[in-house]
Amino acid sequence: MAADQNRLKYTLSEDQIPAQWYNLAADLPEPPPPPLHPGTLQPIGPEALAPLFPMALIGQEVSQERDIPIPDAVRDIYRLWRPTPLYRARRLERFLDTPARIYYKYEGVSPAGSHKPNTAVAQAYYNKEEGITRIATETGAGQWGSALALAGSLFGLEVDVYMVRVSYDQKPYRRALMESYGARCVASPSAETAAGRRILAEHPDSTGSLGIAISEAVEMAAKRDDTHYALGSVLNHVLLHQTVIGEEALAQLGQTGDYPDVVVGCTGGGSNFAGIAFPFIGAMQRGGRKVRVVACEPAACPSLTRGEYAYDFGDTGHLTPLVKMHTLGSEFIPPGFHAGGLRYHGMAPMVSHLLHLGLIEAVAYHQVECFKAGVDFARVEGVLPAPEANHAVKGAIDEALKAKEAGEASVILFNLCGHGHFDMQAYADYFAGRLTDQSYAEADLQAALAHLPKVA
Amino acid sequence: MAADQNRLKYTLSEDQIPAQWYNLAADLPEPPPPPLHPGTLQPIGPEALAPLFPMALIGQEVSQERDIPIPDAVRDIYRLWRPTPLYRARRLERFLDTPARIYYKYEGVSPAGSHKPNTAVAQAYYNKEEGITRIATETGAGQWGSALALAGSLFGLEVDVYMVRVSYDQKPYRRALMESYGARCVASPSAETAAGRRILAEHPDSTGSLGIAISEAVEMAAKRDDTHYALGSVLNHVLLHQTVIGEEALAQLGQTGDYPDVVVGCTGGGSNFAGIAFPFIGAMQRGGRKVRVVACEPAACPSLTRGEYAYDFGDTGHLTPLVKMHTLGSEFIPPGFHAGGLRYHGMAPMVSHLLHLGLIEAVAYHQVECFKAGVDFARVEGVLPAPEANHAVKGAIDEALKAKEAGEASVILFNLCGHGHFDMQAYADYFAGRLTDQSYAEADLQAALAHLPKVA
Repeated sequence: MAADQNRLKYTLSEDQIPAQWYNLAADLPEPPPPPLHPGTLQPIGPEALAPLFPMALIGQEVSQERDIPIPDAVRDIYRLWRPTPLYRARRLERFLDTPARIYYKYEGVSPAGSHKPNTAVAQAYYNKEEGITRIATETGAGQWGSALALAGSLFGLEVDVYMVRVSYDQKPYRRALMESYGARCVASPSAETAAGRRILAEHPDSTGSLGIAISEAVEMAAKRDDTHYALGSVLNHVLLHQTVIGEEALAQLGQTGDYPDVVVGCTGGGSNFAGIAFPFIGAMQRGGRKVRVVACEPAACPSLTRGEYAYDFGDTGHLTPLVKMHTLGSEFIPPGFHAGGLRYHGMAPMVSHLLHLGLIEAVAYHQVECFKAGVDFARVEGVLPAPEANHAVKGAIDEALKAKEAGEASVILFNLCGHGHFDMQAYADYFAGRLTDQSYAEADLQAALAHLPKVA
Repeated sequence: MAADQNRLKYTLSEDQIPAQWYNLAADLPEPPPPPLHPGTLQPIGPEALAPLFPMALIGQEVSQERDIPIPDAVRDIYRLWRPTPLYRARRLERFLDTPARIYYKYEGVSPAGSHKPNTAVAQAYYNKEEGITRIATETGAGQWGSALALAGSLFGLEVDVYMVRVSYDQKPYRRALMESYGARCVASPSAETAAGRRILAEHPDSTGSLGIAISEAVEMAAKRDDTHYALGSVLNHVLLHQTVIGEEALAQLGQTGDYPDVVVGCTGGGSNFAGIAFPFIGAMQRGGRKVRVVACEPAACPSLTRGEYAYDFGDTGHLTPLVKMHTLGSEFIPPGFHAGGLRYHGMAPMVSHLLHLGLIEAVAYHQVECFKAGVDFARVEGVLPAPEANHAVKGAIDEALKAKEAGEASVILFNLCGHGHFDMQAYADYFAGRLTDQSYAEADLQAALAHLPKVA
């Protein structure tokens, strides 16, 4: 076996974990539009966020510094699973009979099984440093709640997770994982908050929504001095923390002699996509090699390909600041599909800004074709991807087939953001033929877009 | 951060995957007693196993060669997840406030989440080489079935998994994983085999048993020329394939400057225990450092600590050869507990032989204390172990506390054979207080032992 000729895994030692997160804001021709106060519609200052977030994170949210040092205590925890491996998907290449060279970064080796702990650990650290003892958050499918529970456990913080009632009932295993890490998991709407009680009074059988759960977590954070709020995607500082993925991938690709022609990631709120893509976009902006960057989103919740680029609320309860983003409208309810992490009406402002600037492309896929791609991948590469990650697998396979058509030995890099071991009901449904492609009604989308807030 | 002083992970590159499996038989003072034909009670020759296994595996079963080369095609697949990391459990050491240095080898990074693919891949390879196109096997909880399904997928073999009916119904997610890898999963007893039909005629609502499922898989393999049988533990060749775990650990410990005073593994059939322990026992036998080796088994199914060392059948249907092993009797039915991989009435003959020779120790733990150990581990080290692995965690923690008591800086190595992401119902039960320690009735054990076959 000629190991080097035929290498599958490109690894780094733990002292090669990046020392800095990469802040793309430093390398853009123009900054993204600022967030606005929901009442005054004026740009908000850092002080408006102080009840919810530690100042260090608020500083990162607006920083123009290119390199943000990763605290030693955060790198210390990262070492439990980082650096994650970069794989050359040689068996997938042979399966597709493509001249393309396909690489993937695998984030499923984290204890929570996804990329989410990269930011959960950082957020827990900064909160702990500021004397906070408890973090409140929301979770839908449970990936984020599990990651923050893990981080809270490692830093000795209490974590309260408001979990959308329907998921709380349907996904007891995610709840059990959060409880394994010592978090308290509360079905939302709950009687613990005014927001929850208001909903329960009107709808005692409410199955909840991410919007309600956000309101509950924000309320708890706002009213308790010892408690802050944490978000698992969308915000600049969250995307920033995920750039360890792309920074490591750059170093690992350095071992291969290859550089990507195209970088592919799936997008829900945008954080894993940002993690793999931003360092490559930044390198290009600083005069490095041109790289195409493709965001793969669900056709049932297509904020980048069908949404408007407009100021909108981050939540359905309209408590958050307004941010300019590609949005389907905060009232848009996507049809049911099996990629809970991609069911968000908006897109991270920074990712939206990149699409607006023409620095990235976006493509929407239906779920059945994504599950087929994920199963094909598992049967040759071994890892069964999370349903969210299947969108990136599908995107990478499409790029590899285009390269085959063109007879070009393109280099493709994608992020495999998590494994599917907590999503087996979706696969069971897929194999039983119970999974169909879901479409929203165009009229519902137009109605939601018609209710976008009016900003001059 | 002084990385070297404080290192957590000891890694190897993929060209450092061992080139040989280690065969402990070469280094023992006396060989284990031979298997006997179930009819004649005479030692059986290789030809008796030929309808079920490829000759290469039968040869490994009886080999006295110390080093068995790992075929390039098997090492090629191992590279998808091997070498697995060796961790220094520094956070666990601090949590226990112990002077002991605790290391663990983590096998949960395989695509199936456990150590089982180490042998599944090898078995699939040798069957493929012999022209076999289909493998039949049984599975209880589903770990082994998933691993063989993965291996079949990677080598292009059909895999038929006879899954105990009660697990088939209760663990649809394991079944979905097997189907993701293209295996056919059949509830056992089934109408596909004479053995299954016989049971169904008498007990149409039978929930099945591992014994019945073995009979079905063996029957299919025996009657079809294109089909062989595969077993996930117990047999010598299976234990042999798992020695990549201990061989890698030896190389990784070489980076630390430490050598274990004690090696700990959990035991069901014995394969992951053998994988971590045999290379260290062999080194000791060849004049190397003395090492204590501790097998941790469930108190509800305690073959090593409460069984007899006697010839017995491997299955409840009494189709298999008789092997000399620590056994609770093939009719022993353990009470229900949450570590499906440890619910076997016997123990691998080679592991039993080691206990007989005084080269290993055994200890039995109840399940609640094991779950507590697993949760403590997860909250400091991140990974949530499989319920089986919790027995090894408990054993390692006990050794670390003994070292604390004695004020000794012992070096402890244990095998963390898999993650618990497919076992969250067990954790949900644990947190809900629904998990209690299960004991068998002593009378039932004595009755089962009274029925051991009479061998001169």
